[in-house]
Amino acid sequence: MESLMNSAEEQQPSSPPGNSWSKQEEINKNETPKCVGGFVLVHAGAGYHSESKAKEYKHVCKRACQRAVDRLKAGALAAEAVAAALVELEDSPFTNAGMGSNLNLSGEIECDASIMDGKSLHYGAVGAISGIKNPVLVANRLLSEAQKGKLSAGRIPPCFLVGRGAHDWAVGHGIPPCPSEKMATKFSLSAYKRNKRKMALAEKMDTGHNHAKKRRQSSETENGSGCLDTVGAVVVDSEGNVAAAVSSGGLAMKHPGRVGQAAHYGCGCWAENAFNNPYSTAVSTSGCGEHLIRTMLARECSAALQSEDAHKALLEAMQNKFISSPFLAGEDRVLGGVIVLRCCRCVESPPSQNIQGILVEFLWSHTTESMCVGYMSAQDSKAKTHISRLPPGTVPGQCLAIEGGVCRLSVAE
Amino acid sequence: MESLMNSAEEQQPSSPPGNSWSKQEEINKNETPKCVGGFVLVHAGAGYHSESKAKEYKHVCKRACQRAVDRLKAGALAAEAVAAALVELEDSPFTNAGMGSNLNLSGEIECDASIMDGKSLHYGAVGAISGIKNPVLVANRLLSEAQKGKLSAGRIPPCFLVGRGAHDWAVGHGIPPCPSEKMATKFSLSAYKRNKRKMALAEKMDTGHNHAKKRRQSSETENGSGCLDTVGAVVVDSEGNVAAAVSSGGLAMKHPGRVGQAAHYGCGCWAENAFNNPYSTAVSTSGCGEHLIRTMLARECSAALQSEDAHKALLEAMQNKFISSPFLAGEDRVLGGVIVLRCCRCVESPPSQNIQGILVEFLWSHTTESMCVGYMSAQDSKAKTHISRLPPGTVPGQCLAIEGGVCRLSVAE
Repeated sequence: MESLMNSAEEQQPSSPPGNSWSKQEEINKNETPKCVGGFVLVHAGAGYHSESKAKEYKHVCKRACQRAVDRLKAGALAAEAVAAALVELEDSPFTNAGMGSNLNLSGEIECDASIMDGKSLHYGAVGAISGIKNPVLVANRLLSEAQKGKLSAGRIPPCFLVGRGAHDWAVGHGIPPCPSEKMATKFSLSAYKRNKRKMALAEKMDTGHNHAKKRRQSSETENGSGCLDTVGAVVVDSEGNVAAAVSSGGLAMKHPGRVGQAAHYGCGCWAENAFNNPYSTAVSTSGCGEHLIRTMLARECSAALQSEDAHKALLEAMQNKFISSPFLAGEDRVLGGVIVLRCCRCVESPPSQNIQGILVEFLWSHTTESMCVGYMSAQDSKAKTHISRLPPGTVPGQCLAIEGGVCRLSVAE
Repeated sequence: MESLMNSAEEQQPSSPPGNSWSKQEEINKNETPKCVGGFVLVHAGAGYHSESKAKEYKHVCKRACQRAVDRLKAGALAAEAVAAALVELEDSPFTNAGMGSNLNLSGEIECDASIMDGKSLHYGAVGAISGIKNPVLVANRLLSEAQKGKLSAGRIPPCFLVGRGAHDWAVGHGIPPCPSEKMATKFSLSAYKRNKRKMALAEKMDTGHNHAKKRRQSSETENGSGCLDTVGAVVVDSEGNVAAAVSSGGLAMKHPGRVGQAAHYGCGCWAENAFNNPYSTAVSTSGCGEHLIRTMLARECSAALQSEDAHKALLEAMQNKFISSPFLAGEDRVLGGVIVLRCCRCVESPPSQNIQGILVEFLWSHTTESMCVGYMSAQDSKAKTHISRLPPGTVPGQCLAIEGGVCRLSVAE
């Protein structure tokens, strides 16, 4: 069960190109198995995080972890805690989710979000929703309404709502509307203007050229850099239930009505309590929506994590089911990242005390230049944060970084 | 390779309760392996098909098969042929797709549709789209635009558009708008009025009762009967490429903005050429959207069909991944149906002639009261149609019917 820790320690800096396994010494050596009450891992996006903004990204991850842990300590189950973490991530003007989301081609904000509860296996999602500050709360409300059973006249409650209908449903269920202009930030508005100019220039330059050729060649893109900051979180609560959530403003300059992976079942997030499997798993993804959709990355990672070695399983999934996926055969750069956790019951030593704990293994991996993560157990006084970066000289979209740690939740029975 | 045929013949009427395998004598005994140019299997919905309308349903299936075969004979690949079949199914006022779709809670038509091409593994989908006569054509256009590569300034083309944005994108790409009032039929309008009255009555009766209790008890529903007629098709072309598509007006009285399985990746349809697998597979689903989403039934069936015995694989997938799925543990009736095909290259006898053919196995299975299907190879003069029904005395949502056949496409190399 300690394979994750060991492999982290055994791995040499001279690892194969493209596979970087950083030593997480502060996690592996200083953390004793003393955690009670749950654990949260969040991310503020796989993309590019400039050094100048690193502090802000870490700060929001820290606050998001704290929010989830506050809920866990108050006795909340995983789904409620993961939603609380997401609200904090959405409220930051620095992330591409909720406040400060990318603007679409028409200069509007349309958000995607989803949440999955590993205990009930219920799922809620919204796509292309405008005028709601916290899309994850709508997704969460859809999930909890669906758990109540059928509507009047035997109608089945929806698990996925989009556009105006999603907005109206949210307001009808007591979630306050928020004027769209309040959700745009100075940064998102100036990025929109810059992108507009870029597009105009690109289209002008293309005039007279072969159109098909043009479309394939223009791979130097705004999307490849700072615009992929979908946020997400995964949580395990004190009962061992898992949950996952994801929220995104989508690609900059997307077509109105475009829905990305954050609202796609199996693509943006996944959570599944153990049931007949050895492990409970929770996954949240970030990056280029279409790549994450077509590879159904969240569900693939969840399935892969049922094999013995979590690190190896995630590494192989990122390599074979994402970077080298036949579903993305024509793509030059496959951009994305995931955070995952898996857990199982384990007997504390000495076993004679008959105390069961929960062993939590958590990892993140990305093919983007960087990914900002934070994690915290209910026993910690504050969250740890980290900006993971691809090793120098490696190519984003073709190589990956993978890191993680392990934590033990002691639960007296 | 003939296991499908054999198991059909061996199975006795006294099959275990819940698993009905009807003898398809006309398929199994009279069809010789003479097919060239492709094969199509369509359905006009899993739900309830009254005897009085049986003729209409069969008719539209026949026309849809003919349309696909016409395209195949003209040299079209699978994706183009499957879209042609769907257009015919959508245009029928008797199906719940395109023309004559169910009305939502606001009395509007909002459609979902998607298409997947097994050769490129590209996918296109629209959700909650209004004012477009053939939603599948928008999905197909999204698919073909995505195949062309990136947009100007390196933007990634969308694979899923919803609502107003989807409508505007379609019109911008030359697909003509259609006034919504032209898409409603006398039948869909009168069903809407009837449902409105039923809902009002149900809500009135519930006044003063415990709300949670009410919601769980009201399982006698309009959705359980005639309102699940999502349509779909699966095709293999002369090169052995597969494609699948699905289109739906969604549940009657759904909330505006609700998106069902027909627009959900992996849930409404799936198509995957063989690549590293033994078989190429194509699947299209129909039924209660939320059940089909949460079980990701299309992709599950596709994966199951890689095992040796197609009939056994589909039977087990329907039983274990749908009716008894842990994802639907709280549901009393799990309503849905699938059509599937799988194919592989095989050597014609005598092998000395070095002629390769394509062996196509095709099946349908449903837990709804009935499912109307049609199928045709490019060698047939007309399509065969059939309304499959659950065996008398079995309970919809708890039992299933499964039927199918086999067809050989001879292709000279």
